[in-house]
Amino acid sequence: MKWYIDKGPESDVILSSRIRLARNLQGYPFPNRMTREASAKLGKEVLNSLKQRTDHSKGKFRTLEMSELGSEDKLALVERHLISEELTDPGLVRYAYISDDESVSVMINEEDHIRIQAMEAGLKLEEAYKAASDIAIHLEKTLQVGYSEKYGFTTACPSNTGTGMRASVIMHLPALTMTEKAGTVVEKIRKMGYSVRGYYGEHSSVQGSMFQISNQITLGLGEEELIVDLKKLISHIAEQERTARKQLSSKSPDLIEDRIFRAIGVLKYARKLSSEETLQLISEVRLGKALGIIDKPDEVNFNRIMSSIGPANIQKSEGRIMEPPERDKARALLVQREMEGV
Amino acid sequence: MKWYIDKGPESDVILSSRIRLARNLQGYPFPNRMTREASAKLGKEVLNSLKQRTDHSKGKFRTLEMSELGSEDKLALVERHLISEELTDPGLVRYAYISDDESVSVMINEEDHIRIQAMEAGLKLEEAYKAASDIAIHLEKTLQVGYSEKYGFTTACPSNTGTGMRASVIMHLPALTMTEKAGTVVEKIRKMGYSVRGYYGEHSSVQGSMFQISNQITLGLGEEELIVDLKKLISHIAEQERTARKQLSSKSPDLIEDRIFRAIGVLKYARKLSSEETLQLISEVRLGKALGIIDKPDEVNFNRIMSSIGPANIQKSEGRIMEPPERDKARALLVQREMEGV
Repeated sequence: MKWYIDKGPESDVILSSRIRLARNLQGYPFPNRMTREASAKLGKEVLNSLKQRTDHSKGKFRTLEMSELGSEDKLALVERHLISEELTDPGLVRYAYISDDESVSVMINEEDHIRIQAMEAGLKLEEAYKAASDIAIHLEKTLQVGYSEKYGFTTACPSNTGTGMRASVIMHLPALTMTEKAGTVVEKIRKMGYSVRGYYGEHSSVQGSMFQISNQITLGLGEEELIVDLKKLISHIAEQERTARKQLSSKSPDLIEDRIFRAIGVLKYARKLSSEETLQLISEVRLGKALGIIDKPDEVNFNRIMSSIGPANIQKSEGRIMEPPERDKARALLVQREMEGV
Repeated sequence: MKWYIDKGPESDVILSSRIRLARNLQGYPFPNRMTREASAKLGKEVLNSLKQRTDHSKGKFRTLEMSELGSEDKLALVERHLISEELTDPGLVRYAYISDDESVSVMINEEDHIRIQAMEAGLKLEEAYKAASDIAIHLEKTLQVGYSEKYGFTTACPSNTGTGMRASVIMHLPALTMTEKAGTVVEKIRKMGYSVRGYYGEHSSVQGSMFQISNQITLGLGEEELIVDLKKLISHIAEQERTARKQLSSKSPDLIEDRIFRAIGVLKYARKLSSEETLQLISEVRLGKALGIIDKPDEVNFNRIMSSIGPANIQKSEGRIMEPPERDKARALLVQREMEGV
């Protein structure tokens, strides 16, 4: 079962948690200065180590060599947050090592030699950290991982030096958005040294009131401390969102109800849907579920829809390259099927 | 059965046909100069004559004295095109004499002493004319109706002198509207001496691509000629609309289909609907039906919805005065029920 076919704690506000750890090997230049030969050698070394692991709690792993994948397959992995766009750059031999449930992926020869990523549904940063660090510890035992007592783990970009960890959470803040408080909240989060992005990560803008919040500081604090701090912040924002939802539904219940049901109507009946509009509509229906206005769909359906509506995933599931208008039709059909029982 | 629970000829483009005949009695001033006593006397005289009729093909008639009705009841009749707003003015004793199928109504002491109106679904001007003139002939036989060989029937406003007839047709022109040709068409119709109004008549703007087209000339031509000319014009516009529909659905079938299904989604799921939005959505779904994109609802459903979504009719069916937001909720519920099988 895929990791996102799950609700997780605090799923009324929190979609998912993610931990990413960066590690590099001694005796190799960073990927931006590496030769193709060196990248191939390093890749084999890391894969050999990974394949020695006997922990199969996340399912079997598959190894993907990037140059062997079609561009649509690569983009589909990016859309599902399984790899970064950087890993799809040609030049070096790059790998993705992905667990069957898609909750864990290891990128080899991305910006760093090794990036381990673990995802969980809901607010489960500790669990994600455990999954990622289990792999990191195994690699540290079997390979020469760069580490200094003073600075911590060596990384290609100094901003990651220290723990090499990025912890992030995707939050759904429709009530703060509707009441126009989201801007102020985001500003405060940024001032506290956290970064705020959209659902599709690094370069994406906020769509459908989905906010990705992550730490920027990696130096000077331990992993556990960073996670505790982020969790505190997330819980605080979640409470603000819940308060805003209560206010919305007590002040203008009819307006909210109308908006939610219209979103359902459009999701069920539209014959063309862009991914942006779909995210927005899903956001509204999800709010309806959280407010108890509707019974179905479940958070699980939302997560499944969201993981499959990106342009590349649409094309992958249809098995061919499509123009945007055609994709919008395929997306509408897919959403319609998911919304059938609603 | 009500007259609008019917399709009628050319119902793909033409919603309804209406004939209105104005008549006045000799020996009474026009209503704008009449005393209350005179209006009461004239009212009795006309009602007595009407009640002598033995033709019940349109069902039984009921007599409504305007001052006895609540303001919501009066407005509900206006919205259903059964009476004009002028008939609700206080001062004089005014009556409406309405057939059970609501296809025929006689207004007494409106702008003229007598206004006979007959409505039919689809393009049925001759039938409507027959229904109205049957009553007019009966009145002319039993009462002293003002008529001059030279000018025709006497009317309060000179613009109605002659036949005293206004023939009008409500057309549904969504494709001409979407392709922005409706403006040019309307301009041409007006230049030819016809008047163009919205669905709710005299002072209403065009909503939901529903256009009411009627003759302005009443003098110099016979009733049959006026009807033949209007029919020719209507058939010509209907052909233009049908051509535009074909072009739309061959040029951008996906766009049209998406628009139509979204309209269905909103009609089925919205929890608040204004009458303006409802007309617009109904217009789009009606186009979908005409293009064969959907099977249901039938034209009959559209007509029934349209006759019941006006603010006054909503309040009448709920049996109480309501604020606009409450009406919008009741309207959404009503539309939802009508759309159940769709």
